[in-house]
Amino acid sequence: MGKVYLVGAGPGASDLLTLRAAEILKRAELVFHDSLVHPQTLALAARARKILVGKRSGRHSTAQSFINKRLVDAARKHAVVVRLKGGDPLLFGRAQEEIDALRRAGIDFEIVPGVTAATAAGAELGVSLTRRGLARHVAFVTPRAGQGERKNDWAASVLAADTAVIYMGAGLAEEISTELIARGKPKATPLALVESATLPGRRILRGTLADLPALALGTGGGPAVVLLGEVLRAASAEPVLAEKIEAILKRA
Amino acid sequence: MGKVYLVGAGPGASDLLTLRAAEILKRAELVFHDSLVHPQTLALAARARKILVGKRSGRHSTAQSFINKRLVDAARKHAVVVRLKGGDPLLFGRAQEEIDALRRAGIDFEIVPGVTAATAAGAELGVSLTRRGLARHVAFVTPRAGQGERKNDWAASVLAADTAVIYMGAGLAEEISTELIARGKPKATPLALVESATLPGRRILRGTLADLPALALGTGGGPAVVLLGEVLRAASAEPVLAEKIEAILKRA
Repeated sequence: MGKVYLVGAGPGASDLLTLRAAEILKRAELVFHDSLVHPQTLALAARARKILVGKRSGRHSTAQSFINKRLVDAARKHAVVVRLKGGDPLLFGRAQEEIDALRRAGIDFEIVPGVTAATAAGAELGVSLTRRGLARHVAFVTPRAGQGERKNDWAASVLAADTAVIYMGAGLAEEISTELIARGKPKATPLALVESATLPGRRILRGTLADLPALALGTGGGPAVVLLGEVLRAASAEPVLAEKIEAILKRA
Repeated sequence: MGKVYLVGAGPGASDLLTLRAAEILKRAELVFHDSLVHPQTLALAARARKILVGKRSGRHSTAQSFINKRLVDAARKHAVVVRLKGGDPLLFGRAQEEIDALRRAGIDFEIVPGVTAATAAGAELGVSLTRRGLARHVAFVTPRAGQGERKNDWAASVLAADTAVIYMGAGLAEEISTELIARGKPKATPLALVESATLPGRRILRGTLADLPALALGTGGGPAVVLLGEVLRAASAEPVLAEKIEAILKRA
């Protein structure tokens, strides 16, 4: 019986993989990977057969139950099987369905966490998602839901959080903007849309919550996250203004 | 003029560092690091002078303004300066204060994201923080606030989110449990406390929100995160039960 590694490939650039993930890929016999994994990351698995199992928001992809079954079958024939997912496997990666299938089949598994798109996008912007005096809680949400899923009140989390990062949201820009404004989020809330973070084709679009639908028109179909919150205003302000904000926060 | 790299060292284990971070450490001349960075990670910076600049929740540490100044001064004398932080620099790392200081001084900088404690803890538990049909939004919060900081309503984010991860909360277990229960979070909400995730001395304590103060007594003072939400119930349930939950979700 083999072992299945659920591995995070990181946000895009191949060198944002962890050392542990690189080591496991080198030993892998079989790699089941998402569409968005970098070719140089896949190339690390020099010995492995690589099988694309889809998963791109809104596009046709291999059924999850079929992936689960293939992982179990593979572990019965191979010592080192890797399920390689974009970002971190435990954030919007449907990992639990695979974990449950492996547990049910009595197959040994290990999860290797990765860098998620939210902090990679923050790194591109030069903006910390938390900031003393301004942002002490961050929500990672997706407005996407499977058919027949229970109500997903993603907006409640965005409204409660100091900073919010919306995954897989660029295609729902109009709905996101309308819903949040209708529920009281100020139209002028600073916002950034980061597409293909850490990759050469990355795009950064800045504006406000009200601008989101217009900004989304400027994206090119790459994976994108939307960042929302006052941390963006403070960081994009002129250095002198940033100093003033700090002085005000100190006095408050 | 040199460049300053704000680098995430990851959640604990030295091989959960990114390839990019390892490469930069090898080139570093000066490394300013937190207390919790793994000795093997520091050892990668073979050429560098290493300077501990503290930062452990609730303990004495170097003043942030002094760290900011040292980074600026260092970049005026050295080509490659690294500020190495536990986890991801943009989550509870006070990175913005350093970024602002570097911007003000006109110093070039780059942020290298890392694996954060929340997903590393999930990996230890075998629990995805999101799960189709059950958890589509996650909050990362800290109840800690500096002196004179504006109101930090971390609890609002926890209450709104399907899954919550509380950073630097083990020392405030009683307050966290009391506050959340008083505001309507069910006492029986499944909870896990993960201390020293990914390290040999790691501890996993499971219970409910009401048990948190008792669980916290079982920790040994290492860095800890508290995970909270229904994803923990589903994942810890017997495989057969997990199957039943899936069937119910499908019908719902």
